[in-house]
Amino acid sequence: MNNNEFKKRGMLVVISGFSGAGKGTLMKKLMEQYDNYSLSISATTRDPRPGEVEGKDYFFVDKDRFMEMIKNDELLEYANYVGNYYGTPKAYVEAEMNKGKDVILEIEIQGALKIKAKYPDSVLIFITPPSAEELKARLIHRGTETEEIINKRLQRAAQEAVGVEGYDYILINDNLDKTTKHLNYLIQDQHRRVPQQIHFIEQLQKELRTVL
Amino acid sequence: MNNNEFKKRGMLVVISGFSGAGKGTLMKKLMEQYDNYSLSISATTRDPRPGEVEGKDYFFVDKDRFMEMIKNDELLEYANYVGNYYGTPKAYVEAEMNKGKDVILEIEIQGALKIKAKYPDSVLIFITPPSAEELKARLIHRGTETEEIINKRLQRAAQEAVGVEGYDYILINDNLDKTTKHLNYLIQDQHRRVPQQIHFIEQLQKELRTVL
Repeated sequence: MNNNEFKKRGMLVVISGFSGAGKGTLMKKLMEQYDNYSLSISATTRDPRPGEVEGKDYFFVDKDRFMEMIKNDELLEYANYVGNYYGTPKAYVEAEMNKGKDVILEIEIQGALKIKAKYPDSVLIFITPPSAEELKARLIHRGTETEEIINKRLQRAAQEAVGVEGYDYILINDNLDKTTKHLNYLIQDQHRRVPQQIHFIEQLQKELRTVL
Repeated sequence: MNNNEFKKRGMLVVISGFSGAGKGTLMKKLMEQYDNYSLSISATTRDPRPGEVEGKDYFFVDKDRFMEMIKNDELLEYANYVGNYYGTPKAYVEAEMNKGKDVILEIEIQGALKIKAKYPDSVLIFITPPSAEELKARLIHRGTETEEIINKRLQRAAQEAVGVEGYDYILINDNLDKTTKHLNYLIQDQHRRVPQQIHFIEQLQKELRTVL
């Protein structure tokens, strides 16, 4: 697909999914293969880990600044995990969308549903592995986690789909290349929705009156 | 895309568009290239034209039978054009959907909106040429119509989008091969909508509890 045919304002795309669904690899591949996406960068109050780069991995801010961002409505959504705040800065997302980029937010379900409430035109996509066996196999295959941690992650996955009925699409990640391509099509199809394209019809009808 | 991954019940897909948008050729190509679609066959009270085949081009019925079909709620929608009735028999559409086929209805806007009201899960796609100039050029290029008829068709096109705001997608047909491919993706993406896939998540979570 020629992604350049959709210029105008970009869209907000929220990606969530089970731990082990392969979201991270999928996002990396999507960014590599298509130039019309921007990955949203979160703000966080936690300390940078070695190798993390300000403005690339995160916007690192202190707690006072984060509280100010909340107060000034500078965040699309935010949450607190184990004592640290994480949020999606609105300014960056808006700037990228204005450039015509479709902005990808990789966040969890509760944050995603808040985004949908604020931006009804956003698209919410839930990524899932093809089966429970496959999910377990992937986690074991990584080799980085103990059996105990793997079991915890599987337990979490068994519970973490609460709210998924508020999503737009469920995409089964059974093959990285294929799923990357499908994800791109799925997102680009949103630009073909009537509210995004109705101006095209109106323009065409105006033109029709002049070619007569 | 492997279209066989979606077995289950098929979907109702309504295609409309400006005269000269290339719907007919597009449908033909879609049927040739993919085996998971069925084209709905209309019932009509008009006489068969030379070469038209009963049960392939149309179901030819007399007026009494058509009135009976209306009375018995055997039609998804119907309309009267210049004295003849045309309608979409429900039985054929249901049978094909039960086989897992996505059934394509090529009907005009008012009929399409009636379908959407009855089948909220149906998808309505409006096909448009890329520009008014291109539409005019296509009609002239056909060489089968007089200038007067071409102008009439353009005039009609300038008016015939009333109700298009009730559609789901607008697809610009700028290239037959590309548009056929996009149309297939667009339809298959509908099978990824949450109401169609939520059972998959539930199943996966059930499985997760057993692999633990």
